Amino acid sequence: MDEIVNRRSIRTYNNKDVDDSTIIHLLEAARLAPSGSNTQPWNFIIVRSNVTKAKIASVDHNQTWMIQSPVHIVCVADIGVRIQNSIEMSLQEESPMEELKQIIRDTAIAAEHIILSAEDIGLSTCWTAWFKQNDIRPILGIPSDKYVVCVITAGYSDEAPRPRPRKDLESLLHFEKW
Amino acid sequence: MDEIVNRRSIRTYNNKDVDDSTIIHLLEAARLAPSGSNTQPWNFIIVRSNVTKAKIASVDHNQTWMIQSPVHIVCVADIGVRIQNSIEMSLQEESPMEELKQIIRDTAIAAEHIILSAEDIGLSTCWTAWFKQNDIRPILGIPSDKYVVCVITAGYSDEAPRPRPRKDLESLLHFEKW
Repeated sequence: MDEIVNRRSIRTYNNKDVDDSTIIHLLEAARLAPSGSNTQPWNFIIVRSNVTKAKIASVDHNQTWMIQSPVHIVCVADIGVRIQNSIEMSLQEESPMEELKQIIRDTAIAAEHIILSAEDIGLSTCWTAWFKQNDIRPILGIPSDKYVVCVITAGYSDEAPRPRPRKDLESLLHFEKW
Repeated sequence: MDEIVNRRSIRTYNNKDVDDSTIIHLLEAARLAPSGSNTQPWNFIIVRSNVTKAKIASVDHNQTWMIQSPVHIVCVADIGVRIQNSIEMSLQEESPMEELKQIIRDTAIAAEHIILSAEDIGLSTCWTAWFKQNDIRPILGIPSDKYVVCVITAGYSDEAPRPRPRKDLESLLHFEKW
């Protein structure tokens, strides 16, 4: 698939805006993702406010380049699809529950659908996840039983980075057993 | 993207085999996935042995339909890319480390590249992950510091299931804040 081969993480964007209908198109692709028992734990926050983007960038390892992107898509996993009365929970990076691993897995799948669908229509993106839950949740009013899996920046590229290196397949591949 | 819209989870396969070069093609797409700090935690085990597939199906919630698929692709996340001396660790479903969440996330991205690349070439798949680490690792000789994220069945479909329902986008979508 060309989208997989050609896609690069882009951290420099030009001034061209991305309209809501384009973002909705990407989220439709996310919505169709497979998930464990079809539980669909994903939620999405579309952020365009420069003030909010600056706050996000600040807690996301101070990656100020993020502010330049016209839209942030915040991908949030909801453990409530798997645990009743989750409203009393406070999810952290060090929380041990299997259900948290499952909703992170499934939301990552949906997020990658956003990434590949964007590439398909000539829109550039970058995965970011260099924040702590306790720092990013208050910025966006996210309840403590939700886990922010990533913030995807989206926009039109103003750079042409070369491919990053990848490990050889032989070093990753096993036949019949480890 | 047609692959995202049209893809279904397939649990009934015909007798047609899938050759190694086709599986390698899928794993090349997985290998190109993005990952946090380009750490690439993924490993893959290609399983064709009927005995091993039956053992996997047995610990994977006894999903006997899995045996019918000619190939299982076992997707394994290696925490060693993030933690030194991980060889002494024993990862479990209830392990609390942030690094485990990160490698699950990244391996899920790579696994979905397999799923979508398969759809692109007319090959059908199903995500499965209804096993415990302590049950599946011994079958495949996987060290205790690796975490099995999923077993993907692959083959040629012998069924045409209708789309599973998905939540409306409106119920998942937020603007500017939660």
